[in-house]
Parts: sequence; structure tokens; C-alpha cells
Amino acid sequence: MSKKPCILITNDDGIGAPGIHALYQALKSIGDLFVVAPSDERSAVGHAITLSDPLRVWKTNFHETFFGYAVNGTPADCVKIGYWAILKKKPDVLVSGINLGPNTGINTIYSGTVSAATEGAMLGVPSFAISLGTYTDPDFSYAAKFAVKMVDILLGKTLPDGVYLNINVPACPENEIKGVAITRQGLALYKETFDQRIDPHGHTYYWLSGQKVNPEQGLDVDDGAVQANCISITPVHYDLTHYNSLENLKQWKIEI
Amino acid sequence: MSKKPCILITNDDGIGAPGIHALYQALKSIGDLFVVAPSDERSAVGHAITLSDPLRVWKTNFHETFFGYAVNGTPADCVKIGYWAILKKKPDVLVSGINLGPNTGINTIYSGTVSAATEGAMLGVPSFAISLGTYTDPDFSYAAKFAVKMVDILLGKTLPDGVYLNINVPACPENEIKGVAITRQGLALYKETFDQRIDPHGHTYYWLSGQKVNPEQGLDVDDGAVQANCISITPVHYDLTHYNSLENLKQWKIEI
Repeated sequence: MSKKPCILITNDDGIGAPGIHALYQALKSIGDLFVVAPSDERSAVGHAITLSDPLRVWKTNFHETFFGYAVNGTPADCVKIGYWAILKKKPDVLVSGINLGPNTGINTIYSGTVSAATEGAMLGVPSFAISLGTYTDPDFSYAAKFAVKMVDILLGKTLPDGVYLNINVPACPENEIKGVAITRQGLALYKETFDQRIDPHGHTYYWLSGQKVNPEQGLDVDDGAVQANCISITPVHYDLTHYNSLENLKQWKIEI
Repeated sequence: MSKKPCILITNDDGIGAPGIHALYQALKSIGDLFVVAPSDERSAVGHAITLSDPLRVWKTNFHETFFGYAVNGTPADCVKIGYWAILKKKPDVLVSGINLGPNTGINTIYSGTVSAATEGAMLGVPSFAISLGTYTDPDFSYAAKFAVKMVDILLGKTLPDGVYLNINVPACPENEIKGVAITRQGLALYKETFDQRIDPHGHTYYWLSGQKVNPEQGLDVDDGAVQANCISITPVHYDLTHYNSLENLKQWKIEI
């Protein structure tokens, strides 16, 4: 019987994305890998789950070197169906990624990559999301190596119930990475713009773009750490309660 | 010039859903209403936004008594496009709902209704999501009346930056409602099941269902308050950082 840890792998860029393949190749020497990932790209899906439609699962095999299950669903769907219907046992670790593009600041709440780690944490599985801080010419090799280290660390440590890690690796060359920073989520917002265009049939459509305004600096915040060429590790959880406001709200004395 | 507050209204059940119409009829005496809502149901979409596809907007008019804009996007898309491309000014209040079904406990993170209020809070707009605690035979009238009261209260108070309210109204008759409870988000989890079925073409598909296991009791938690026939008001925010883990993680001394 294998003594290797069982590692559930997923992402939001889809099962064919280079980031998940780099992760798979790096982790396969240390774990029994179990890939359940979206059949196509599901970026910025937030914590969506599929309730109104059936899910389908396809066994997938790329060049005899990568085996997995593709699902026509979201990252959260993949973790749920992987755990409850395919694997049917609790994996030892869940790794989501490697995402093409950073998931720092408020992007954390839009991220399908992070939402998969959220689902892992809900299942009581030590979980992390890992993202690379570039959208172009990605080299996933160092991030994949760091994921191997993090799996090893997580197997020897305990996070509080419901807490998981959001890891962002800067896209600089390995020898320029300065270190590891434990960070909070940045709160800088986006200034959104909508391109208004006319389609070939004369109808108006809109396309969302946007730019983060004044990302926070400093090694204590995810955006700042990555910008300073540090690996950012943010402990996150899925309790959205703003505890400091509970007493304040009680003083409002809202009645029926 | 009107002195009525400008109220941005959205939901995740779609612009044709009874809950948003009940809300509209109740709020129209107190505000200038501006509806931007999904053209069809977008429940459980979490905090999804649409990046890879164009968004379209249709002016909508139901029986000359309800005017709004339908968008082929998610609740978060609706708030973004409503603010940045249609309204082009900051509304005074944002109300998302009235949702068919409760958004308590961990459902909060799957909820499109709540995600719209999140977007409102990001824009610096006093915002709340409001949901009715039943999926069958809904009577939205009391929840709509309570929404009017909450708009009035929010216009006179100040929440901290980034904090907004998740309101759940029990589905009991109005005279059985016991009061208002200020609550935290429940953390009870789901036991998921996937129905495995065969389609008419002989292919397997899966359908997610699930049941919350041991919802938390007590008037200090959203699930418990609604079950006790109280209106639950939970202050929530979009900073996912688990601050208590920052020091702990630093002690792990993770290196590159």
C-alpha cells in the first residue's frame, strides 16, 4: 500500500492549462495525484457552484504523463464532485493552481482558484491556492517547486479549522526572489471601465476592463509583497462576519 | 430636482423574479429606483464576474409599473455595469434581493445576492442583501416592508468602509416574527450528495444536492435566528484574511 499522500489538484484555468501540468509534474514524485479540474477555463467565477445543470465527468489523459478528470463545472464543483463522487475519501492535501495571473487583493474574492481551496478547507483538508504573478510568458517551474515544499510543510503543521492559504509567487527569475512574506489581503479597489462597442449586427455590447487603483505597498500585504519579489502567503477563511461591527449594530436598536 | 435617494436594485433570481418586483413596489414611494438585474436566474454564482464575454443590456418594462435594465451577466456584473456604464453616478443605497431562499451560514459565500451587496460596498455605497427563508410559496410582503425600513436606517447611519449587511427574513406570518437579531455567519457545513444518473443517450451525469449538517442554534448566529423566527442581520466584509493566523504562520519560518 502506498504511503504517499493523496493530493487533490484542481484549478480554474482548465485541465489543459500549462499551470496545472507544471504542478502535476512537480508533485508526482511526492504524492498520489488526483486531478479533478474544469474542462475549460473558468476564471473569475468566484465561488460559483452548479445547481441547475447536470455535471459531466470525463477521464482525461495527456500524452500518458498526466491523468485526471475533467468536469463541465466550476472549481468549487470540481472539489465537491472529486471528494463526494469520484475519490470518495478525504485527500491529505488540496492544491489549486498554478493560476496564470496573481490572485492578490480583492481579486481573491473573484478567484475560482481560491474558491477551490475554500472548498478544500470546508472539507477539513489542508488546502492552498497558488498563483503566478504574470499573465504573459509564464514560467511555472519555480512556483511548482514551491508548491512541493508547501505540501510537505502543510502535512507537518496544523491550520485552524476553516483556514487555508492563498499563495502568490512573483514572476521574476528564481534568483531574484527575495523571500517569503506572510501577508494580509490587500483592499485596493478597481476603477472599472466598460468598453461600449457595436457588434456586426448593429447591436451595442459592453466589455469589462478595469485597473486596480493604488495597490497597497509593503511586505505585510499580498500586493506589496509580490511587487517586492516576495512570495506572498495569506491565511484566509470563509467566515465573512465583520465581528467588530456586531456591537455597533446592536446599538442601532433595529426593530421589527 | 428630486430629493429622493437614488436606490440601485439588483438580485440573482433574475429581473423577472417576484422578489425583486415586491422590493420595487415597496421602495418606489421612498426612492428613485434604478434596477439593473440579471436577465435570467443566476443563483449560486458566487462572486463571479464576466471577463471573457461581452455583456448586453436591455431596457425592460413590465406592465408600465416596473422599469429596469436586464443584463446577460451575474449580479456582480450588474452592479459594476450599472454604476460605471449606465447610472454613471454613485447611488445612495444598494439593495439586492429579495432572494427566494435564505442566504445564511456558508451559503453566504455561494450567494449571488450577497455578492451584489459586496460590489456595492466596494463602491462605497451603503448596501444590503435581503433574502426570504423559504423556497416555496413565498410571501415577500413583510420582507419588502422591512427593506424600506432598512434603507431609511442605512441613510441615517454609517457602516465602516467595506462593511455591508446580509439580512435574512423568516418566512413565517408577520405577526409571528419575534424581533431582530444581530448575528454572525453560521459555519455549519453541507454533506453533499451527487445523484448519478444516465441520460437518454446512455451517458452518465451527476446532479449536486446536499444538506446542511447541524445548523448552529441561537440568536447570535444567522441560521439560528431565522429558525427562531427572528430577522437576522449579519455585518459582513470582503477581507478574507484570517488575522489570528498571521503570527502563527510567521512562526512556521517558511523559506524560499
